[in-house]
Amino acid sequence: MNKQQLIQNIKARKSFLCVGLDTDTKKIPAHLLTEEDPIFAFNKAIIDATADYCVAYKPNLAFYECDGLKGYEAYEKTIAYLKANYPDHFIIADAKRGDIGNTSKMYAKTFFGNYKVDALTVAPYMGEDSVTPFLNGYEGSWVILLALTSNKGSFDFQQDADANGERLFEKVIRKSQEWGTPENMMYVVGATRGEMFKDVRKVAPDHFLLVPGVGAQGGSLQDVCEYGMTKDCGLLVNSSRGIIYADNTEFFADVAAQKAKDLQEQMAKELEKIEH
Amino acid sequence: MNKQQLIQNIKARKSFLCVGLDTDTKKIPAHLLTEEDPIFAFNKAIIDATADYCVAYKPNLAFYECDGLKGYEAYEKTIAYLKANYPDHFIIADAKRGDIGNTSKMYAKTFFGNYKVDALTVAPYMGEDSVTPFLNGYEGSWVILLALTSNKGSFDFQQDADANGERLFEKVIRKSQEWGTPENMMYVVGATRGEMFKDVRKVAPDHFLLVPGVGAQGGSLQDVCEYGMTKDCGLLVNSSRGIIYADNTEFFADVAAQKAKDLQEQMAKELEKIEH
Repeated sequence: MNKQQLIQNIKARKSFLCVGLDTDTKKIPAHLLTEEDPIFAFNKAIIDATADYCVAYKPNLAFYECDGLKGYEAYEKTIAYLKANYPDHFIIADAKRGDIGNTSKMYAKTFFGNYKVDALTVAPYMGEDSVTPFLNGYEGSWVILLALTSNKGSFDFQQDADANGERLFEKVIRKSQEWGTPENMMYVVGATRGEMFKDVRKVAPDHFLLVPGVGAQGGSLQDVCEYGMTKDCGLLVNSSRGIIYADNTEFFADVAAQKAKDLQEQMAKELEKIEH
Repeated sequence: MNKQQLIQNIKARKSFLCVGLDTDTKKIPAHLLTEEDPIFAFNKAIIDATADYCVAYKPNLAFYECDGLKGYEAYEKTIAYLKANYPDHFIIADAKRGDIGNTSKMYAKTFFGNYKVDALTVAPYMGEDSVTPFLNGYEGSWVILLALTSNKGSFDFQQDADANGERLFEKVIRKSQEWGTPENMMYVVGATRGEMFKDVRKVAPDHFLLVPGVGAQGGSLQDVCEYGMTKDCGLLVNSSRGIIYADNTEFFADVAAQKAKDLQEQMAKELEKIEH
């Protein structure tokens, strides 16, 4: 999906919500465990319930890998279901890959060549040749590079400044613009650092940002929008646990829909501000 | 496998060689493609041929993921084959994982709980809570943290110094010692930076280092040993392409064995130097 299509979808659905499909068999409603594929049954119900309120889905590979072959099968079925039924939704493989060139090339083949997802999260530590294989050869595919994450550990390295005062996340954003463009690269910036979006926008005024950390991790949607929104929106705000595990009875999908709708309505108000 | 066992295996086999199983169906001998599971058939032959000359195997997940469910099956069979037939060989899952705490916990469950490999490579960018879930709860399991990698992109961020002159890879090594010990943590340090091992040893005098980059990537075993070896050896030197793709005829396994033996013989000489 290209940037223009993404922006159109955001405007049409008045939402920049991404629903994180971190599906854990220990947390899904008990009645689903008798299904042949409980993970896929859960995802399908969540997707059908929330699709009107979001523009993107982000299954995190960790939650599928840990169930072995069954987990991968559920992952594949989820991607196939999304592509068949919701082709306008942006699919993010949250896998935080990144390796030497010939290995990143294999990962690119997996996610963009085989699964044909729209975007993959990538870790920047190994630098240019670990990232560029994801940017070349797959039209309409995106790298979402980790910049400033939402977790406590983001203070360990990401915010340390070099001799010129440039912090690591700023350097990652600045340097990576030599490799990709706002048309094929986004950055992960955690919602838990509302005011930091000002600093991010200084180095990446036009890029879309994938924003985890609203909800369970305590970030504020209003702060994110105040400091991070561009004239094209420029944000995909993710919520995982706050939506998909809001309820674990037979009404889980209805409650998830309501939680997604609540966020979508707040997002619609924020989008109004950039309409004029 | 604990550190003492690893050291014993190195002494017994006079080798600190790790064979990288980066098995690519495009590169394996054509006659294997008619096998039911070509990847596993290749791995099994390589393992049987090289086991006497190495102490560790390192399958890189990228090469298995890209074949989908069949690839994962080949990966699982390879791990099971190693554990059943070569229980003294150290198994490294090269996957460069790392995510927020609850997600890293799922990855730890996958690799240490399910596959029961000895070690997992982890990317440090997200800091402490992305790494510690791999260190807690799995006895005898190791984190191998990326520090100074062997690729060109290692110059982009890893070698930049902060205001105090500390470079990122040094900070990663120093800080991570608050999370793990030389008994459960190693570092990736690329062989292509021979003289940099001196600097690494200043901050990590006792840790084992996993060293990629000898062979295809151009690193020198002698330099690595001169600057990086400790009294306990302290090195696992990996070779992937230089061994497993040295030949692609029906004699591929014999040639791989010879290449592994050549390295092992050089390593035996290096180990003699620390025997006294």
